[in-house]
Amino acid sequence: MPIASSPLDADRLWDDVMELADITDPAQPYTRRSFTPLFLRGRAWLANRFREAGLSVRIDPAGNLIGRVEGKVPSLGVIAVGSHSDTVPSGGRFDGVAGLIAGLEIVRALGDANAHLSHPIEVIDFLAEEPSDFGLSCVGSRGMTGALQQTMLAMKGPGNEPLGDALRRVGGDPVQIAAACRRDVAAFLELHIEQGRVLESRALDVGIVTSIVGIRRIEIMFEGAADHAGTTPMALRHDALVAAAQTVVTVRALAEQLSKGADYFVATVGILDVTPGASNVVPAGCRLVVDIRTTNLALTEQFVTEVERESRKHAAAASVSRAPLVTLSDGSPAVCDPVLRTQLHAASSELGLKATDIASGAGHDAAFMTRICPSAMIFVPCRHGKSHTPEEWTDRDAIAAGAAVMLQTVKALDRSLDRDGSTKKGGL
Amino acid sequence: MPIASSPLDADRLWDDVMELADITDPAQPYTRRSFTPLFLRGRAWLANRFREAGLSVRIDPAGNLIGRVEGKVPSLGVIAVGSHSDTVPSGGRFDGVAGLIAGLEIVRALGDANAHLSHPIEVIDFLAEEPSDFGLSCVGSRGMTGALQQTMLAMKGPGNEPLGDALRRVGGDPVQIAAACRRDVAAFLELHIEQGRVLESRALDVGIVTSIVGIRRIEIMFEGAADHAGTTPMALRHDALVAAAQTVVTVRALAEQLSKGADYFVATVGILDVTPGASNVVPAGCRLVVDIRTTNLALTEQFVTEVERESRKHAAAASVSRAPLVTLSDGSPAVCDPVLRTQLHAASSELGLKATDIASGAGHDAAFMTRICPSAMIFVPCRHGKSHTPEEWTDRDAIAAGAAVMLQTVKALDRSLDRDGSTKKGGL
Repeated sequence: MPIASSPLDADRLWDDVMELADITDPAQPYTRRSFTPLFLRGRAWLANRFREAGLSVRIDPAGNLIGRVEGKVPSLGVIAVGSHSDTVPSGGRFDGVAGLIAGLEIVRALGDANAHLSHPIEVIDFLAEEPSDFGLSCVGSRGMTGALQQTMLAMKGPGNEPLGDALRRVGGDPVQIAAACRRDVAAFLELHIEQGRVLESRALDVGIVTSIVGIRRIEIMFEGAADHAGTTPMALRHDALVAAAQTVVTVRALAEQLSKGADYFVATVGILDVTPGASNVVPAGCRLVVDIRTTNLALTEQFVTEVERESRKHAAAASVSRAPLVTLSDGSPAVCDPVLRTQLHAASSELGLKATDIASGAGHDAAFMTRICPSAMIFVPCRHGKSHTPEEWTDRDAIAAGAAVMLQTVKALDRSLDRDGSTKKGGL
Repeated sequence: MPIASSPLDADRLWDDVMELADITDPAQPYTRRSFTPLFLRGRAWLANRFREAGLSVRIDPAGNLIGRVEGKVPSLGVIAVGSHSDTVPSGGRFDGVAGLIAGLEIVRALGDANAHLSHPIEVIDFLAEEPSDFGLSCVGSRGMTGALQQTMLAMKGPGNEPLGDALRRVGGDPVQIAAACRRDVAAFLELHIEQGRVLESRALDVGIVTSIVGIRRIEIMFEGAADHAGTTPMALRHDALVAAAQTVVTVRALAEQLSKGADYFVATVGILDVTPGASNVVPAGCRLVVDIRTTNLALTEQFVTEVERESRKHAAAASVSRAPLVTLSDGSPAVCDPVLRTQLHAASSELGLKATDIASGAGHDAAFMTRICPSAMIFVPCRHGKSHTPEEWTDRDAIAAGAAVMLQTVKALDRSLDRDGSTKKGGL
């Protein structure tokens, strides 16, 4: 719905989203991979927009591009808003960009209204939120929250380049990485497209995120024998795919069961590789990757325990061996700040928007930001829940509505944080 | 076991198997792909051996290399023995070669003994028994039995070369292909390694093949939606892999059930491809290839009907669609001649060898030869059932024992076929 009373310029917001999205590999829209020349072109455009809006611009040691307006009271902590400008290959126009430009538009709207806040405001373009070519996601928000370890800086990307070197290429400083960790942020807010169908299906304007799932990825490998598919009787087979298929069925059944509880829970087998993969050879090997996401870590533990036990049974039944489960990655769930959530609800209500609490099934920079400050997110609806695809779409008014909620909340925060004195630098 | 009384030269047989096997791509033993320069080198070696053994040598229009000794009675049909000299990529030393050199050794042993048979004998190196780079197997035996169609001659291989042109390159004649079809063969015998573990596990010397399976391959495609693995609740998913995994489980259960009957039956899912195949994306598509082999065609029909019904149910349960099943290839089972089988059993018994009836789960040139003449096969054991791999192995004495059974049977055939007059040319 259009927000008639909002001081935001919905067209300016929309046009900038489109303009940044258009900085893409023309052969593969919408692609602006972190650390690439295109990414730097996008950032140059963004830095220019920041300066036009009166923001000072810097890049921190973790490679985050930060635009800043000083507040009236130097002792107060920063109210930060932002998201990311990088994309997955063949991604969409809105994932990251919508939240980033919404942040910029909030500052422009405040400027237009000559509203000089007590707190400094920063608009942050976090570096490499999407899984980068170095095998790591949320590089910038990890750095800003003390979670970018030396081992990560050594991870290798294209041409065997270490992440640390790539960080230097985009203006960061791996040697000073500890200095990227902030102690002066009073609150962080991020707007993002939902990447799901809850808001659309219930005709809601905004989702106010309760928590962001933790993601654990486990690898399961079965090993059998590559026997002749014609001459090996069924009883003499060691078919790795049979054990893997049973495990896929188990993963689905367990996930359906756990998803019926109060906590958000989903699990997916998205990768299943068969070797040798010939029609006339019994599968000798099978590799699965299970992606597990929940707001309640205990459910992950319960799920993995059951998958461990059941997949062992399936291996035994198929006369194949199963290697110990390997944890490929593991992130804890992050809880959004209850006070910020209440303020986002209040702002939505004031603006006449329909809001709901919602769990985030996707990871976001905000999940890392919860480590250093009260953080919260709002989701705006996107068409058919599609994301990470050129079809990704959200309406002009949907972004404007979400940005208006953010603006209203930033103004309210400026008043309340100031009042109760909780936002002194270093005083969170 | 060594056949002390056999007039065969087991060392000469073994050495020639090794010599032909050694004509291989040195970087990828044992590889001698049909239609390649290496294949022609192998055939030049073989033709030379044929001539040394007193055989006349020719290549028929279907590209089969044929060595022949005339019989004493010109009106009698040919007793043919043979197999193939081509290999799969990185295959073994014995698949095809063992039977081919066994055929040559039989003729040499007869010559050594000055045994001039009434029937002509031919040793045949069938062209391209293994799946060729043109997507077709058993090219030569198809041609010799009237089963090499014009559409097959148009199939394209490397560099877009039609099979007909490749046939000409190796000495065949696609224009005269109909002339390759034989009406003068009285009987065909083929020795082959078992490519399975039945003989080895039961410590038997030879398997006498009852029938050669028909092979049907079907493709099953499921189509769902590539949703975000984090933001899409379990109940809203269209996960193609879940339906495919259920189908793999169904295939296995049905195959186990059907394999318990009197007829040979095996079924395998050897190919399962997932798209897009990313850990954080719900599988949008899944393609399976099911390989079904049985000596009883009715079981294939029953199996496919049940897989069709069950996979449709699995698709519905996973909210995905399933395309109509596609038959990729379909060959009928071939029955080995009961009279020849009785003679092979008698010969084994005379030689003191332990034999068993066995179904062939792999396809062979003999399956096509059953179309034009009484045909039979014997298997010799191979280590751990391994085949189509450099590890493929069978013992010197195992091949010699099988060849001795063949020789004994050829001599018996020569007497019996002559006596009952059933082998006049064209009089099968």
